[in-house]
Amino acid sequence: MKSLFRATPLMLAATLGLATALPAAAQFAKPEDAIKYRKAAFTVMATHFGRVAAMANGRIPFDAKVAAENAELATTMARLPFVAFTEGTDKGDTKAKAEIWSEADKFKAGAAKMQEEMGKLNVAAKGGNLDAIKAAVGETGKSCKACHDAYRKE
Amino acid sequence: MKSLFRATPLMLAATLGLATALPAAAQFAKPEDAIKYRKAAFTVMATHFGRVAAMANGRIPFDAKVAAENAELATTMARLPFVAFTEGTDKGDTKAKAEIWSEADKFKAGAAKMQEEMGKLNVAAKGGNLDAIKAAVGETGKSCKACHDAYRKE
Repeated sequence: MKSLFRATPLMLAATLGLATALPAAAQFAKPEDAIKYRKAAFTVMATHFGRVAAMANGRIPFDAKVAAENAELATTMARLPFVAFTEGTDKGDTKAKAEIWSEADKFKAGAAKMQEEMGKLNVAAKGGNLDAIKAAVGETGKSCKACHDAYRKE
Repeated sequence: MKSLFRATPLMLAATLGLATALPAAAQFAKPEDAIKYRKAAFTVMATHFGRVAAMANGRIPFDAKVAAENAELATTMARLPFVAFTEGTDKGDTKAKAEIWSEADKFKAGAAKMQEEMGKLNVAAKGGNLDAIKAAVGETGKSCKACHDAYRKE
């Protein structure tokens, strides 16, 4: 079981690589399916990240095992939503700004930054050191906020 | 990387066990948070299961690598939603029937059955044999439908 949850730089790189192995186009029958999926993936990610953040911020007691499980799940979720920002999904039940498509390279870089920081949080959580987790939660949260500020409508 | 995605009975047991390591109570601040989370987890699970099912049904071409990735994700997602059927989450934006709580043991058994069948699908998908995947998709789909019929409002 250990090997499943031991994060290494190689594994993180491979995990990020997996996102590109799933073809970005033609995965969703309808634009609203893509929108629903990406929102769901963000919801699940935010829930699990939020539990680690709550421990980092002292709102709930620190439990190293639970923190590690939640960071692992958040990291898995972090690679999912971005393939669903396909063309034609800027309309409908979404807060996505048009800049996601007009500045696609910058948006992708922001997504990659978040995945990288979440991956570091995952490593920190496996290590079980609360100070390292706090620092990684802060950096991950910044990477979330950067894209929300730039690419999400109020 | 291989070790991360090789499923064994031991690993499946450990994966199912992980769900119980996350305390069921007090994970969600408000009932609506629990409802939103479980619906999101089902949405992500259904998307990835649906891709494997589409290959099994011949609606999209079979790609063993993509099938295995999607089955792995669906299996991860399958262990998430059920902790969010907490007391007080039968009202609101949900199709959950009251029987989920009045027949809690039966509901839990149905959830465990789905997790078990999804785990078998994961093993089949890693094996790459389309006939085995087809059979496992059928059994998993039946386990989904059984709970939808019994516990989800129209």
